[in-house]
Order: sequence, then C-alpha cells, then structure tokens
Amino acid sequence: MEQVIKDFVDYLGEIRMYNQAVAVMSFDSSTIAPKGSIAARAKRSGFFSQKIFEMSTSDEMKGFLEQLAPHVDTLDDITKAHYRRAKKAYDNGTKIPAHLIKEFNELKSKANAVWDKARKENDFAAFAPYLEQVIAKTKEIAGYRLEEGQSLYNVLLDDFEEGMTMEAYDKFFGKLREVIVPLLKTVVNSDKKYDTEFMKAFVAKDMQEKISEFMAEKIGYDLDRGYITESTHPFCSGSHRTDVRITTRYDENDFASSFYSVLHECGHAIYEQSTSDEIAETSLSRGISSGIHESQSRFYENIIGRSLPFWKYITDELKTYLPEEFKNITPQQFYEAANQAKPSLIRVEADELTYSLHVMVRYEIERMIFSEEGVDVNDLPRIWNEKIEEYLGVVPPNDTLGLLQDIHWSWGYFGYFPTYALGSAYAAQFVAYMNKEMDVDALIEKGDFATITAWLTDKIHRHGSVYTPTQLMEKMSGEQLNGEYYAAYLKKKFEGLFA
Amino acid sequence: MEQVIKDFVDYLGEIRMYNQAVAVMSFDSSTIAPKGSIAARAKRSGFFSQKIFEMSTSDEMKGFLEQLAPHVDTLDDITKAHYRRAKKAYDNGTKIPAHLIKEFNELKSKANAVWDKARKENDFAAFAPYLEQVIAKTKEIAGYRLEEGQSLYNVLLDDFEEGMTMEAYDKFFGKLREVIVPLLKTVVNSDKKYDTEFMKAFVAKDMQEKISEFMAEKIGYDLDRGYITESTHPFCSGSHRTDVRITTRYDENDFASSFYSVLHECGHAIYEQSTSDEIAETSLSRGISSGIHESQSRFYENIIGRSLPFWKYITDELKTYLPEEFKNITPQQFYEAANQAKPSLIRVEADELTYSLHVMVRYEIERMIFSEEGVDVNDLPRIWNEKIEEYLGVVPPNDTLGLLQDIHWSWGYFGYFPTYALGSAYAAQFVAYMNKEMDVDALIEKGDFATITAWLTDKIHRHGSVYTPTQLMEKMSGEQLNGEYYAAYLKKKFEGLFA
Repeated sequence: MEQVIKDFVDYLGEIRMYNQAVAVMSFDSSTIAPKGSIAARAKRSGFFSQKIFEMSTSDEMKGFLEQLAPHVDTLDDITKAHYRRAKKAYDNGTKIPAHLIKEFNELKSKANAVWDKARKENDFAAFAPYLEQVIAKTKEIAGYRLEEGQSLYNVLLDDFEEGMTMEAYDKFFGKLREVIVPLLKTVVNSDKKYDTEFMKAFVAKDMQEKISEFMAEKIGYDLDRGYITESTHPFCSGSHRTDVRITTRYDENDFASSFYSVLHECGHAIYEQSTSDEIAETSLSRGISSGIHESQSRFYENIIGRSLPFWKYITDELKTYLPEEFKNITPQQFYEAANQAKPSLIRVEADELTYSLHVMVRYEIERMIFSEEGVDVNDLPRIWNEKIEEYLGVVPPNDTLGLLQDIHWSWGYFGYFPTYALGSAYAAQFVAYMNKEMDVDALIEKGDFATITAWLTDKIHRHGSVYTPTQLMEKMSGEQLNGEYYAAYLKKKFEGLFA
Repeated sequence: MEQVIKDFVDYLGEIRMYNQAVAVMSFDSSTIAPKGSIAARAKRSGFFSQKIFEMSTSDEMKGFLEQLAPHVDTLDDITKAHYRRAKKAYDNGTKIPAHLIKEFNELKSKANAVWDKARKENDFAAFAPYLEQVIAKTKEIAGYRLEEGQSLYNVLLDDFEEGMTMEAYDKFFGKLREVIVPLLKTVVNSDKKYDTEFMKAFVAKDMQEKISEFMAEKIGYDLDRGYITESTHPFCSGSHRTDVRITTRYDENDFASSFYSVLHECGHAIYEQSTSDEIAETSLSRGISSGIHESQSRFYENIIGRSLPFWKYITDELKTYLPEEFKNITPQQFYEAANQAKPSLIRVEADELTYSLHVMVRYEIERMIFSEEGVDVNDLPRIWNEKIEEYLGVVPPNDTLGLLQDIHWSWGYFGYFPTYALGSAYAAQFVAYMNKEMDVDALIEKGDFATITAWLTDKIHRHGSVYTPTQLMEKMSGEQLNGEYYAAYLKKKFEGLFA
C-alpha cells in the first residue's frame, strides 16, 4: 500500500509539473506575450491541457483510484485529499461522453462571440437562442454527473465551491437580503455625504508602482517569492509557494484603484505563499476554492484595507510618498472616501455594500433556470431588471447594462456567480472568530499585519487544498458559513458611516 | 510511407511543444521570475528536459528512424532535415551510457562552483584538478560518438557547428591571424585618435527604451511578434516565429551599449521571425546553428550598425530623441566612436577587430588539449598568457583576467568557443555576395533595411534548420566559409580609420 501511495503521489506530482508550466505560460500570455502569437499560444495551451486531461483520466489513474478506494478511511488527511481531488477529476473527465464535451466547447465558443456582439449592440434577442442552447447542454452534461436524489443545480454549485448547495445558498442570501436591502435604503436616504474628490489627485504611474511595492511588503507579501506587474485585469497567479505573482493596473487619476487592487491580490498571494512544508511540493499546495481564495483577498482589501484603524496606521506612511497630494487629509477622511456606497448597475464596479446584491440576482435567476420548469430565456432580461430595481432601487436602461453585462453564461459558467459573494462573507466570519482571540482593530492600527496573517495561515493558508471549504470552516469554528457575520459587519460599518 | 512520415512529424511536433514551453519558462526565469523560486524552477526545468530526452530517445523514435533510414535519399529536403536532426539527437542520447552522463553532470556542477570561486580569487591551482577531470570525461564521452577515422576534437566541433572541422578552422584562423595581427599593430601605432567621450552623455533609461523600440522597428524587428525587456545579459529567445523576444541592459552613461545590444539581438530575432510558412509549425523553424545565428546578429550590429552609411542615415533620426546630447556630432564622428580598436584582456568586452583573436587563442588551446598528447593543464595559464601577448601585445596580470575569465570549460563546453568567430566571418562573406547583386552601402544610407533583410531571408532566414551551415553556404555562394572575406572587411575598415 505504501508503494501504491508513493507511485500515486509521484504521478500527481508529474501532473503538477504540467500545471506549473501552464501557470507560467498563462501568466506570460496575460502580461507580455506578443499579440501576434495568439494562435501559437492557443495551440500550445490546448496541447498541455489535453496532456493534463489524459493523465487525469488515464488507466494508470484509474488503477491508483481502484487500489486506494477500499482504504480511503484509513488514509491520513493529506493522502485522503489527494484521493478526493483525483477521483473528482477522474469522474468529471470520464463520465461525460467525449463528443458532448467537444460539441459543448464549439457551442460555447460561438455563444461567446455572439454574446460579445449582442452586449455591444444591446441585442439580447440575438443572444437568446445561444443562451438557450448553452443552458440545455449544461443540463444534459450535468445529468451525467448527477447522483441519486441530487438536484441538477447542486452539481454545478459543487463544481465551483465543493460542498456548497442550493439549500445553503438560499439561507445565506436570505440573510443578506434581509439586512442589506433596508441598509442600502438607509444609506441612500442619508444626509451624510463625504468628500471623495481628493482621491482623484494625479499620482504618476512610477510613484504608484513604488506605493504598490511598499504596501505589498508592508501587508506581508514576500517579494522574494513574488513579482508585481501590470495587466488589463488584475489577477494573482501561483505555480509554487516560492513563485506567486500579482498584477494590477494603474489609473493616474485614481490612485485608490490600484491601491486596493494590490491589497486584494496580495490576499490571494499570501494565501498561496503560506502553505505548509508538508504539502509545498504537492498539488495540494494551491488554495482550496475560489470562495476561500476570495475570502483572503477580501480580508486584506476590505476587512483590513477599508477599516478606520488601517487608515489611522497608513495615512502618515502614504504621505511620505505623496506629501503634497494629501497634505491635509485625515485618516477619517480616507476611511470615508474608501467606503462610498450607492446603488449601481455594473457588478464589477459595485462597492462593498451593494456588490453581493448583484450576485444575489444572478443566483436567483440561475436557481430558476436549473430548478424550475418552463423558464423562458426571453423573460430573463425583464426578470433581471425587476430584481435589480427591487433590491438596488435602480432600473437598467438597457440589457447591455443589465443581464448582458457578464461574460460567464456565454461560457457555460453556471453556479460560479454565487461564489463571488462567499469571499466577503467568509472573511467577515473569520474576523469575528479572530476577535475572540485578539483585538484585530488594535493590531491593524499598529500595522501588525503579521499577527493577523499568522492566524489566517494557521486556520487556512497552511492547509492548501487538504480540506474542503466546509471542512475548513468546521475545523476553524465548529460551524458552517453563516451569513449573519457578514450582515452584522456591513450593518455596523455602513450604519456607522451613514445612519 | 506517407503515414510513417506524418506520424514522425507529429511526434516531433509534440517534442516541439515541450521545447516551446521550456523556451517560455526559461525566458521567464531570465527576466522576471522571483529569485526565491530558483529551486522550483530547476526542478521543473529538469522535468521537462527529461521529457524531451525521453521522447528523443524512445523506442517510438527508434521505430521511426529505422523505418525512414532506407528511404532517406528519396525524401524531400524538409523531411530529410527532420530525419537528420532526430537521428543526431537519438544517437547522442543513446550512445553514451546514462551513468556517465549523470557522473558528468555532477562533476560539471562541482567544477562550475569551483571555477566561480577560483576566478574571483585568482586561484587557478584550485580549479586545475577539476578542469583535468572535465577534460578527461569529455574525451571519454566523445569517444562513444567517435566515428571510424574521426578525430576527437571534430566530434566536439561538429556538436556546436554541424559540418565544421579542425581542418576548416585551422585554415580559417590561419587567415585571420595573418591579417589581423599586423593590422592591430598598425592600429596601435597609429597617430589617429578619435573622440569617444561624447558617447558617454547621460541618457535616461526610459529614453533609451524609446530608442530601442524605435531602432528595433526601423531595422525590421516586428514588435507585434516580439517584445523587448531587460535582463542581466542581453539575449534573444524564440518559441515560434510569432513570438521572438529580445532583452537588453541599460547603462545611463553609455547609451551605445544598449543601442548595439539591441541591433545585435534584433539580428537574431529577425532570423527567427522570418522562417517560411512551410516550416513555421515544425521544429525546423529555429535557426540552424550558433554560428549562422551569430552571423545574423553581427550583420545587423556591425555590418550595418557600425558602418558609415548607417550613421549618415541614423544620426538625424537619433537627434530627434537626443537633440541636446549630440547637438554638433557628425555621422563621421559617430562612426569613428563606434569603431574603436585596441587590445584588451577580456573577450566579451573586445571590439570588432580584436574579438576573434581572443577566440583564436581559446581554439588553439582546445586544439592542443584534444589533439595533442601530454598537455598538462597546469601549463595552460602560461600558454594562454603567451598567446595573448603574441597576438594582442598585452600580458594578463593574473589568471582572473586570463584563462579563468570564461565559464565555458567548467561546464564542459569544448568546441563551442570557435563558433564565436564564425558569426562575423559569415556576415562578411554574406555582404560580399550581397554586393554582387545590390549596392549595400547605398541601401543602408537610405535606411532601406527591408531590401537587405529580404536578401538574407531568401538565402538564410526562411530555411530555418532545413540545411546545415555548410549546405547553406554552398547554396548561397557555391563556396564554403572563407576567412578571406572577413579579413578583407576588417582590413578595409580599420586601415581606413587608422592607417
């Protein structure tokens, strides 16, 4: 058995080498690769994805899984995690007929091109038949992976956040709706208006680069094992805990944009840099899920970065870089400017308070599509607009600013949207538990981020992908994701500012 | 047979995917990869090198080669080239016992570390026993690939420039010695001294970056399929003709350093960007050898870039970027400053006239080591110093500035040095033939580099690795490498400047 485990882990280690290569090439593609090489890169990326797929679904893999299956319960946590993840990849890769995958990829490719045009031209009718087909194909394919008694949408939800279900999301979003919708009304009707103009001071790109490095190091991102550069959309990319890079983009008339992007991506990066020695050389050294990953980025961006104690600490430091620009600005003013809240139409531009309402609308519509009968895609834009009006109090003037704004559905990503709301909610739950052991605000105000990171590393980072999100939450707190913490966090902050 | 060829070419295409991945990762390592990830990168690089080695020496490869062998003469040039190169890789990979390769790699790794220290501490005695072992192991390993009647050194020379032999190099260096040694005496004794001080004007890095892009585009490097960045040592790295990158390094008090580096690397890059459609998607799309590659870089750097017509063309253009710095400088003054010649001790810093003398000294010593009996490594520093004095008229004050200056021998790279002299010699031969068809100086003075590149593309670039260097020369001119052209080129230029 020991030999089987060793061979199995070595085999996974080989797949990991391919994944690392893909990560490096993909980072290269998103940053500096010449635009003329797009075809060559697509071909290469297809080749390596296919290699990874073949290894993950090979007879050799099947052999390992069959040999290990009877002993799963007796395995240590790390080997168990290897098994769980390899089994899931094997099942996902083998249960669905290859021709269906191929047809689906072709369909998505077309649907994506049509969506792109439809969004630009505000022409939902052009996209509708493709959306209908993508939904039908998604259902057909999920059907192959459906387990006895499981609902279709839960298959999709589990793909993007292991262990999460419609039932858990219903409860979670229910809580958010109950708290945020009235809270937003309070904010909108508030007489308090804060100055944000000073945040638009011109800050040259090379100065912003210096501030990025300074902030990144200060917050705990190890630049000896990282690198900061630019790309169209900020992201974090890790291939090994010694090589975790982030990108940002600079707007010389909006220094806060990159400032908060960097804090956000540093959260992702610190997670990936902090896995334990035991798993550093294995495929378990990556973060477990997009939800937990986003909890770390939101922690550094919002829980720390948009708090008053943070601005009490950082204002003077920042002024050493920008003495003239922010001469008379107080920590309180920075705090207020960094916490604007108002209803808006575009999810990716939404603020901390309203962001999850956008996600909730997507969730509710996806839920209809996959768990109710007879939903007509032609009704979706209207449903979207009604819900946005109900929760946010604004009405999209067209579908470009409505249902068509996001790329995901054209790529068949159903079940992904709800994870966007998890990050902030997990983060709020973490800080609540952290506060039982230490005074988090006091630490932030001293700039002692190391103590905070140490706590997160102990509870989350070091485990990489060993535990599922639900197992992690259970280990940390003895309870599962609970929307109460996030709702309370928002209520306290935004009532404090606007009530 | 057609199917065998197709499968063979597909198989090579798969190896190419690995080579492309290695190229991208290696570029990444040399430019932006975090220093903390060196161990992870070494592991990954070892993994992919091993994959390439396994595929190149597999039973499947053996099968292809055996099936094709009886038909080689009837194959088209492209398939023949695939066969020739795959056969060479297979033979090199299989003729030598694996344990020897492993021992050699371990030895080289140690020897390299010892050399590094010995060079810094001017302690040849410490390095001598390792050098002796590396030489012995090189001989032992080359022995496995020795063909009936072939001399050992020719095995090594052929590794780095296919088709080149000791006999050809003897003739070549003989000619250079005959012309350059007295020519250098003329230069050294000349009364003519030129101003070079103005070239040290301060030029800020971001301005140099602009000039790099401008020059690169002007000379014909396609930036839609390329990228310029910085690294410790300038280099060119291609993974596909649509993705060929170059690096440079900037010295703000020596703008010419990067200026000529960029022209040099553009020569390499234009070669790789210009392979024909027929081979673009195959492993033949890379340049054929280091000698031919260097001929292209030297062509753009020296034949074009250090000529008077070039400065007549570019001086005004350059002044649009640097109007103050070079206000009163004439093309003639730039030309003179760019063509300094004086004996020096360090090869990599040597000028166009003296560079090949350094290479010749290495060649003569390697030739002794591998084709004479009883050479004592302890005598090598003395021999080095004597030859440097004889050819260059200067005496190295210590071994750090003498035999120990170069890394190559510690890595077992014997037979590589002489290729450093080939580039300029090929380039001079090319321009002599080009001049039979067009007035090259007139084209340069007009800035019509496209016509020059078109000629080089027709004769060299488009063929990638289809023909060996000797075949290429034969096709171009009906003669082989001939040192006369280079000797005449140097004589004309440096007598013109200094006689």
